[in-house]
Amino acid sequence: MTARKLISLDAMGGDKAPSMVVEGAALALERAPDLRFLIFGDEAALRPLLAGQPRLAEASELRHTSDRISGDAKPSAALRGGRNSSMRLAIDAVRAGEADGVVSAGNTGALMALAKFVLRTLESIDRPAIASFFPTLRGESVMLDLGANVECSAENLVQFAVMGESFARTVLGVQQPTIGILNVGSEELKGHDEVRAAAATLRAGQLARQFHGFIEGNDITEGTTDVVVTDGFTGNIALKTAEGTARLYSEFLRGAFKSSLTAKLGYVFARHALSKVRERTDPRRYNGAMFLGLNGIVVKSHGGTDAIGFANAIGVAADMVANRINDRIGREIAQLSVARPAEAVTP
Amino acid sequence: MTARKLISLDAMGGDKAPSMVVEGAALALERAPDLRFLIFGDEAALRPLLAGQPRLAEASELRHTSDRISGDAKPSAALRGGRNSSMRLAIDAVRAGEADGVVSAGNTGALMALAKFVLRTLESIDRPAIASFFPTLRGESVMLDLGANVECSAENLVQFAVMGESFARTVLGVQQPTIGILNVGSEELKGHDEVRAAAATLRAGQLARQFHGFIEGNDITEGTTDVVVTDGFTGNIALKTAEGTARLYSEFLRGAFKSSLTAKLGYVFARHALSKVRERTDPRRYNGAMFLGLNGIVVKSHGGTDAIGFANAIGVAADMVANRINDRIGREIAQLSVARPAEAVTP
Repeated sequence: MTARKLISLDAMGGDKAPSMVVEGAALALERAPDLRFLIFGDEAALRPLLAGQPRLAEASELRHTSDRISGDAKPSAALRGGRNSSMRLAIDAVRAGEADGVVSAGNTGALMALAKFVLRTLESIDRPAIASFFPTLRGESVMLDLGANVECSAENLVQFAVMGESFARTVLGVQQPTIGILNVGSEELKGHDEVRAAAATLRAGQLARQFHGFIEGNDITEGTTDVVVTDGFTGNIALKTAEGTARLYSEFLRGAFKSSLTAKLGYVFARHALSKVRERTDPRRYNGAMFLGLNGIVVKSHGGTDAIGFANAIGVAADMVANRINDRIGREIAQLSVARPAEAVTP
Repeated sequence: MTARKLISLDAMGGDKAPSMVVEGAALALERAPDLRFLIFGDEAALRPLLAGQPRLAEASELRHTSDRISGDAKPSAALRGGRNSSMRLAIDAVRAGEADGVVSAGNTGALMALAKFVLRTLESIDRPAIASFFPTLRGESVMLDLGANVECSAENLVQFAVMGESFARTVLGVQQPTIGILNVGSEELKGHDEVRAAAATLRAGQLARQFHGFIEGNDITEGTTDVVVTDGFTGNIALKTAEGTARLYSEFLRGAFKSSLTAKLGYVFARHALSKVRERTDPRRYNGAMFLGLNGIVVKSHGGTDAIGFANAIGVAADMVANRINDRIGREIAQLSVARPAEAVTP
């Protein structure tokens, strides 16, 4: 049995939209021929692009709108004035049950505000979180929140832990995902009140056996836990610091291979192996940040990505659809007493 | 004219102490023959080690104590019970004017607590910060706070900016160092109250021309600004995330060079160039975190480092002594009206 996988696309979001969106969708369809699309955007721009992708055109329905949310629009402005935007209509389609999930490379703040307004949060979830996979020494982990919530209560962090756990089990396929809370040290007394209270709640609740405790920044890439929980301020900065560090390292490497004739020769021999490293650390590979905690599947693609990255974001949405991730999170949050934290602990 | 550079050493702090400390000091002396040392620790262990380093023995005075601060001691316990510890006595020597600065690879929390208690903060500085250099695409920058203050007010952040600016100008030798505050986006309205209020103060004050505004995680390694200001929670996690990412990248690389015979051959040719990358990203190269804002120079070496890393930490302390960093910070904080922030701004 294969359920329907119909993804609605905001064709006008992203630096290279709409061509990048159409090419990305065509690539995603090549990889998963059972996908179907609802494409929202400017018909005059999209028709010629779709004409060049006959298989995609056949698997898609195009819905015209000339409105779009600009990259620098404030969330409040997107809510008020964006009712006919490609982003809003693509989310509306999920709300109406016409689509199973939505992908946009547009303005993150606007996408989160519209998604929260239109789809609402799952019962027992106060705030959605932005989650993403990232590569580790042991494979892949999932980290959240990556920027939706600049300030988080202990209760928010506990809910992120539950959502991340569901996600790692269903989408990553880890049997008993372990959970860590990012902190400045692993000792119980480290950190501020919110992380300590969240940890105390998890230690006392039904996820106690999977709760590893506090982890530090280097544990993210060590793969110490399958789920990394943090507030959106820290998570966003950690993610971008990691991206910057990878870029620094690869620039140093590029310089080294150019530094002498022998080094250039070495590069020729190692090129094939090095291209695999580039592939493993390619940001496009990890493109597609998931908004967890909503009544609907929403995936945010990096705004600057290309067709390959956008196809990966569509793949993430399709995986979430196939795994019925929201039903699972909803069930688990309802079951788990840990969804509501104990009183804050004062050491 | 060369001023005295006498560094007191906590010989008993760090995983591989005291041999790592003695070897590190010997190496630092080789690099800078004008250095002198006051070495605090267990005479029975230190005498034989010094006997193997006659030049160091000649340049040092050994002061015996059998007490030490353990790696897991709480700061409060170190304050109460550590009066005769090697760490405390090494700091006392700075307070007494016997030494110009102190280096320890021991327990960070204890070192900060003892240093604050013994040396006190500079006038107009509420809280000291931990600062470190790090490599960027453009050279080197300095980031603070890296973990001394888990929660920071706008006022703390502004003071960190002033201290970082002094430091970059004097020790890094940048004429007009630029300053950025880490945030989740570069727009003025992003982030929580503290970062917004700190930014408003810097924009209005005497450092306005050097204040770049908000920067993001990837800007750290881009080298967008010479000084990166953040709270100790975020800074600690960002630093360790960067370390972890560098390690991940280098492990991927190691795997790639072993993946085939041609790749192994490529490594042979590129080995020399690659060793330079390893050198540039070697954590030992950036060892030596500076405690800024105290009436005395205190440098914390990584606990797990070896003699090379410890020698670098001593080099950092010696640079700070040579540049009379605390006098300069003190003068600038006193001069700058920005030392006290304006009212918090509500957008």
